[in-house]
Amino acid sequence: MFDLRIDGAIARLRLDRPEARNAVPLSGWGELAAAAQEAAGAARVLILSGIPGGVFCAGADISEFDRLLEDPAARARFRKAIRHGLDTLREIPIPTIALIEGDCYGAGVAVAMACDIRVAASGARFAITPAKLGISYPQEDVHRLVSLVGAGQAARLLLGAQGIDGAEAARVGLAEVHADAGAAEALASAIAGNDPSSLRTLKSAVRLAAMGVAQDEGQERAFDDLFGSGALAERLRAYRSRPR
Amino acid sequence: MFDLRIDGAIARLRLDRPEARNAVPLSGWGELAAAAQEAAGAARVLILSGIPGGVFCAGADISEFDRLLEDPAARARFRKAIRHGLDTLREIPIPTIALIEGDCYGAGVAVAMACDIRVAASGARFAITPAKLGISYPQEDVHRLVSLVGAGQAARLLLGAQGIDGAEAARVGLAEVHADAGAAEALASAIAGNDPSSLRTLKSAVRLAAMGVAQDEGQERAFDDLFGSGALAERLRAYRSRPR
Amino acid sequence: MFDLRIDGAIARLRLDRPEARNAVPLSGWGELAAAAQEAAGAARVLILSGIPGGVFCAGADISEFDRLLEDPAARARFRKAIRHGLDTLREIPIPTIALIEGDCYGAGVAVAMACDIRVAASGARFAITPAKLGISYPQEDVHRLVSLVGAGQAARLLLGAQGIDGAEAARVGLAEVHADAGAAEALASAIAGNDPSSLRTLKSAVRLAAMGVAQDEGQERAFDDLFGSGALAERLRAYRSRPR
Repeated sequence: MFDLRIDGAIARLRLDRPEARNAVPLSGWGELAAAAQEAAGAARVLILSGIPGGVFCAGADISEFDRLLEDPAARARFRKAIRHGLDTLREIPIPTIALIEGDCYGAGVAVAMACDIRVAASGARFAITPAKLGISYPQEDVHRLVSLVGAGQAARLLLGAQGIDGAEAARVGLAEVHADAGAAEALASAIAGNDPSSLRTLKSAVRLAAMGVAQDEGQERAFDDLFGSGALAERLRAYRSRPR
Repeated sequence: MFDLRIDGAIARLRLDRPEARNAVPLSGWGELAAAAQEAAGAARVLILSGIPGGVFCAGADISEFDRLLEDPAARARFRKAIRHGLDTLREIPIPTIALIEGDCYGAGVAVAMACDIRVAASGARFAITPAKLGISYPQEDVHRLVSLVGAGQAARLLLGAQGIDGAEAARVGLAEVHADAGAAEALASAIAGNDPSSLRTLKSAVRLAAMGVAQDEGQERAFDDLFGSGALAERLRAYRSRPR
Repeated sequence: MFDLRIDGAIARLRLDRPEARNAVPLSGWGELAAAAQEAAGAARVLILSGIPGGVFCAGADISEFDRLLEDPAARARFRKAIRHGLDTLREIPIPTIALIEGDCYGAGVAVAMACDIRVAASGARFAITPAKLGISYPQEDVHRLVSLVGAGQAARLLLGAQGIDGAEAARVGLAEVHADAGAAEALASAIAGNDPSSLRTLKSAVRLAAMGVAQDEGQERAFDDLFGSGALAERLRAYRSRPR
């Protein structure tokens, strides 16, 4: 259900199951993990999007939920499959941008939150709906939600389960940028023009900081080492010889 | 000084001491704890508000502060009474909404922050004023403030001790919704229509996440178990048979 | 490169190296630390600013970076000098306000983030640019950035390395106030009128909370002790005798 294209430095991964409003079936989470890893090996930045101008992701595929009503082992498999897909996407070393142009519901919000940056277009609509169905939301994703929007907005979104649009998502911090697909492209191009080793180190620094880490020896070593990587020398030369 | 009414699934708890602008005396914190627990046993969601269209809470009752000037033991009792009232409110298992329509000062802000969600109406005004009086603010409530508004806005509010209105409160994250009493009612109704077991689990998940917990076995078990609770089966049936 | 003036209760520290757009050389970080400590000993609040109406700080002085390309020991010295300057500024016990009226780039953003509160004027422009040069950003400052703007905006700013203006900075949380120099002055005056012992305790409480501390015995003791400090008695008297 994923369509991956590599355009030079930019990988474009699209959820592509329009007949189910891009709902992700159990088998989809492994596909997401595989596609994310393939993208990380082939490009400098990833844009993850849904139907162009339309639905981003309707969530987990509830047509498969009947099995979960009766089979406890299936529930654990379901939970772990989601975790594997989302954590793999989150941990690939290249920057990731989610472009949300339409509905983004339930586990679809967790897919968007597994990316580093979210661009919400004017048609975007977000809702986190497990309380409507009588189920829960993975702790890891609640934690990610709280670190993006704070405990109060997380409570509002999870307990009320009501929808918000792209402007509201940007206001509360569920999206970093409220703009259209062109803004996601421009951001991806800017990122792709930056140094790949810097990006890898900085992405890891943000990840650590979000877990509360303010000091880290690996980051100190990377900070020192990058001065000798050759990229700085080259970029300083280019900077100094630029036309003014 | 608290007036509690149960209207079906919704508990309405009002601070009701208009002659003191709803300032909370030492004895009020235990009343708050008792009323919150009674509400949790009788309803699915709690709305906490002040004088309709007016003052939410002027803070702790400073007419009682003279005793604290001389008696160290009274200070510890005062600190613990506040803690007991606020922590009990915060830990009841049903969702809580604070509706702030007027002045909300000092410890009144801590009362609002002990709720899950804050709705600030156009007449709302917030100020955290201990630095004006030469006193401090409980660490637990400073922590809650920082997790809602960030360290920078927390410093601005605590060190400057100046007032902000409801729109500014929503901008900085001290309120989740900037709208009138009707919005608080609508949110409470939406929450009351959701599954109570989901709500309890999700409220606990947000609480854990705000303390930095990204993985929790109890939450994993609850995630799995809720699929078998019967609520999902019933809600799926209702969802699938809805008119389209 | 720093100009410190004490005007009664307010210390004014200006970055003053206009010929280098206030870029901070290696030697500047020690000067920053010394000036911050001098200010803390002489005033109740500090305003840190750049060229009046102009550049705040262009970052670390890249004209000194050539040495870092070849000499690993120089890199560690550079990293530690920055840390010493920023951490000293951050840890002085009086409230600190950064007033940003123009460009604030790279390590200049870390200087602003080492203050308690940031006021961004209409000409302010922020960018965190190490990814453009092929280098990194100190983990401590990434952590501070994440605690101010969240992990998503931190990723956007660090990975994209693009500029944002003062209004956007206020929207995302990189500045607490979007207003001109007069607002920074008014805030400083308000702070200077508050009780110094309260301010010291509250600044420390915010610092602890930003590190995840929700309970602290030292803060409990300070909470109790401040009731007996004499300041409350005096301020209560003034409050009660105010004209109404």
